[in-house]
Amino acid sequence: MKILRVDLATRQARKEEVPPYYQDLGGRALIAEILSREVNPRCDALGLENLLIFAPGLLAGTSIPCSGRISIGGKSPLTGGVKEANSGGNIAHYLARMGVKALIIEKKPSDGRKYILHVEETEVNFIPAEDYLNKGVFETAELLKEKFGKNIQASIIGPAGEKMQLAAGIANFDNEGRPSRYSARGGLGALMGSKGIKAVVFEAPKSKSVQPLRQEKYKETLKKYVELIMTSPATGQAYPKYGTAAAVDIVNTLQGLPTRNFSEGEFEGASKINASALYDLIVSRGGEGSTTHNCMSGCIIKCSNIVPGQDGKEIVSPLEYETIGLLGSNLAIDSLDDIARMNWLCNDLGLDTLEVGASIGILMEQGVLPFGDAKGAIRIIEEAGQGTVLGKVVASGAEITGKVFGSRHVPTVRGQAMPAYEPRAIKGFGVTYITSAMGADHTAGPTHRMNVDHRQGTGQAEASRNSQVGCGICDLLGLCLFVASGIGPNRQVLVDLLNSVVDKEYTVDDLNGMVKKFLARESDYNELAGLPRIARLPEYMYLEPNKTTGTVFDVPMEELEKNFL
Amino acid sequence: MKILRVDLATRQARKEEVPPYYQDLGGRALIAEILSREVNPRCDALGLENLLIFAPGLLAGTSIPCSGRISIGGKSPLTGGVKEANSGGNIAHYLARMGVKALIIEKKPSDGRKYILHVEETEVNFIPAEDYLNKGVFETAELLKEKFGKNIQASIIGPAGEKMQLAAGIANFDNEGRPSRYSARGGLGALMGSKGIKAVVFEAPKSKSVQPLRQEKYKETLKKYVELIMTSPATGQAYPKYGTAAAVDIVNTLQGLPTRNFSEGEFEGASKINASALYDLIVSRGGEGSTTHNCMSGCIIKCSNIVPGQDGKEIVSPLEYETIGLLGSNLAIDSLDDIARMNWLCNDLGLDTLEVGASIGILMEQGVLPFGDAKGAIRIIEEAGQGTVLGKVVASGAEITGKVFGSRHVPTVRGQAMPAYEPRAIKGFGVTYITSAMGADHTAGPTHRMNVDHRQGTGQAEASRNSQVGCGICDLLGLCLFVASGIGPNRQVLVDLLNSVVDKEYTVDDLNGMVKKFLARESDYNELAGLPRIARLPEYMYLEPNKTTGTVFDVPMEELEKNFL
Repeated sequence: MKILRVDLATRQARKEEVPPYYQDLGGRALIAEILSREVNPRCDALGLENLLIFAPGLLAGTSIPCSGRISIGGKSPLTGGVKEANSGGNIAHYLARMGVKALIIEKKPSDGRKYILHVEETEVNFIPAEDYLNKGVFETAELLKEKFGKNIQASIIGPAGEKMQLAAGIANFDNEGRPSRYSARGGLGALMGSKGIKAVVFEAPKSKSVQPLRQEKYKETLKKYVELIMTSPATGQAYPKYGTAAAVDIVNTLQGLPTRNFSEGEFEGASKINASALYDLIVSRGGEGSTTHNCMSGCIIKCSNIVPGQDGKEIVSPLEYETIGLLGSNLAIDSLDDIARMNWLCNDLGLDTLEVGASIGILMEQGVLPFGDAKGAIRIIEEAGQGTVLGKVVASGAEITGKVFGSRHVPTVRGQAMPAYEPRAIKGFGVTYITSAMGADHTAGPTHRMNVDHRQGTGQAEASRNSQVGCGICDLLGLCLFVASGIGPNRQVLVDLLNSVVDKEYTVDDLNGMVKKFLARESDYNELAGLPRIARLPEYMYLEPNKTTGTVFDVPMEELEKNFL
Repeated sequence: MKILRVDLATRQARKEEVPPYYQDLGGRALIAEILSREVNPRCDALGLENLLIFAPGLLAGTSIPCSGRISIGGKSPLTGGVKEANSGGNIAHYLARMGVKALIIEKKPSDGRKYILHVEETEVNFIPAEDYLNKGVFETAELLKEKFGKNIQASIIGPAGEKMQLAAGIANFDNEGRPSRYSARGGLGALMGSKGIKAVVFEAPKSKSVQPLRQEKYKETLKKYVELIMTSPATGQAYPKYGTAAAVDIVNTLQGLPTRNFSEGEFEGASKINASALYDLIVSRGGEGSTTHNCMSGCIIKCSNIVPGQDGKEIVSPLEYETIGLLGSNLAIDSLDDIARMNWLCNDLGLDTLEVGASIGILMEQGVLPFGDAKGAIRIIEEAGQGTVLGKVVASGAEITGKVFGSRHVPTVRGQAMPAYEPRAIKGFGVTYITSAMGADHTAGPTHRMNVDHRQGTGQAEASRNSQVGCGICDLLGLCLFVASGIGPNRQVLVDLLNSVVDKEYTVDDLNGMVKKFLARESDYNELAGLPRIARLPEYMYLEPNKTTGTVFDVPMEELEKNFL
């Protein structure tokens, strides 16, 4: 494996030996290490010194199901700290099969032009991007497929990223070349925009897959791994049928479904936007719709979906729980069609649906438009595309929207909008929000499915810590988070898989230790960037009860010592 | 002397003994110490834990000319760090004559109502503010004078502060009860708004003045002090005649006058907005105009002015250099009438003219309106009053305006707009911007009048350090900064004055040491708040030359060691 380093100032790419300190790392862990060693934590996140990093996990390129998550990261323009956001699709597999351990993009084009980075197995081409600029993500994807063929994978930013808007994400191709697998969070789209890169195109590598070094052990473990996933009720039955939308009922029952700008925890319209409503809608409309869909090649969970309109034509794929929570219940909007439409609009502009949903929630509370006004919400997202000032504010994310509108009810941590779990009701998630270096991130350490009393202030620290380590394992290996649900406590199977692929003798403890080490690395980086190791929820969540639960966030700070993880 | 502590939650005020660690401090130094001891540096600046502090300097209440600056401070909602902003007027004298060493305002009204704090010698009254809300600063001032009489002094916020807009300042009465002496910077108006306080009214105390403890020495030193000020060309002649506008020509000659969003350093219209143009305008129009004016009682420098319109009626008082730079040359606007009008509008809304000017400069560069479009600029400030989204963005300051509009040319340091000195041309000022805990603040350590080659990268650190200490002495004593120009190197006279007032035996070294100690205290506080001791200018100022000077900011970082001051 090599590091593929692209210098935009000289427009040259080079393959470098992997130094020993990057050797055993992958995905999110590798990003943390590269940032720690190469990027001044105090630098301007949209400036020359930041890096845009693509890092496959340690199992990428193999035929292991669900092993193709691509980690994208850098210093976050939104939080000012470390940021990794991973997505499905096949980019990680492509890179690993090319022998690339990480793609590191440095500096900015010295000629001030914008480029498409075209990554082939043997070289990187810098293609002027004029023909693609100011175009939506979907049109850009079509143009790229026309030019480079159907087999490419790509990471694209929309107009939002080009304008360096802080709620901009990076859209990655799914298995069919649909640019809708999002590295949504932390403003990574703005970071890519600041580099003058409209898209990174990955040509299909010639080699079919990465061959595990110990074939016997691999085959045997793989079988066990697949069996665990297929026989788990969550990954074998619920996710394939209902996708992530299954969480609507779970979280609504816990009274932790963000409703009306995170003021309530139970949405009266939940049954219209929950998993069965979505399932029924897709099935009844047929056409291009599908209740199950794999975002990456070889996935056996297939939690993704394709939502059709009344004419059977695709509106959006996928429609996921977080988006339903933030653009649905949080805005008191109970129409899946409207939510799907908003989702597509955000995807096309290249905007994080969570930031946009949280921003519009603030606007609704401020009276700019009423709660439940789907047409108004759609219009505001369209305004983000048209470039009205209101649209620009929303595209700058919830934190800035809150400041501009003088709101004291801004559901953010470290400047980043919360995902669809109200931390006064599901307190373990609140612990994750404030202790994870990633800030309020749904993939950093969910606790809503854990066996704890979510309303209790005590006991949440351990739940969050366990979940954060579990997520960290997936993020290191490049596995989908749902693998963690599927295998449950059987982490040994992941260790066995890893050992068979890289020919090592790790133990479960080793793996847990590697994860704790990179999580600490992330927190160290944040500390050097000026961010506290333990952040705070917004003040109102300590003082004002959630209207449904009557609870405030009261996890004792003593449980969250400095070196929490 | 006592500490007057107001608890808004219980609506109770109490006078406390001054603890030993506050005893020898005043003004900005006392604010730094109170923040360090009482306010969590990581707290939400608009939340419960922050304090709003009014601190007279050590010489306040005496008859020493120019000794009545009132320091107002807290953790800044704009920078996230320590903030002190002082202004003229007579509030400091009033407080000192009441025997109040500092007024500390804590928490927020538990009933959610807004209040006027009415500070009398013996008690503090909490008067519901409903009749004053959403009113401009000038109307509010008139209503307060109607209710409480002409002898009051007051600190008022406008609608901007009420809405917690981050560019909001605090307007303090001048000697005639005109609410236009601004503690403008750092969003202190938003902090006051977050406390639910529309105005603090100070009744005139019965005691006439603070009596120095050593009368002989005092009288003798005072004579010398007055003589030094009156015989200095700057304070004896230039300021009384031309006011701060004298800096237009000086800085324009240095090619450091911010022009067209800090892209150039020389303004072709400078002669239309310089000191002699302003002087001629005031003299020719007569009426209520005045070329010289004292902001506080007993001032002998009288750098303030009253600018009349063509009808002879007052447009604004004072019109100062920083405002001319940011709302004039920075926007390529060369009409003093337009600048004065914008100044009044900002004053009435309670907005910092520097933040507003820098914000509009960014908008002009972004093509929202053309450079030089005075009508457009006035309209945008009016929009801030009307509450359009663009108006809200501008009222949130330059940093947020830059983020919302995706600009890479945002002239801020620590989130705060630069004053009217371009740091690529006047590099010592740039050193002040990045080393002062206050960020880009014109009162933190100006170097434009110092005898250095302003274009050289080297040698600036010492100039800035000397100036920062000189300013710190004034900020500790409550003296107008211009006293520092007036007395020049004769710091002994200040020490003698202080010794005569408080009966101590300080030396000049002691005084310098006290200042360095509180400056370090400020930087320590910032560090605990997550801000670096040495900040950075915006990246473009290191990379892109100022178009006039052809220079970038290239002060060697080695000259700015960690403990710079």
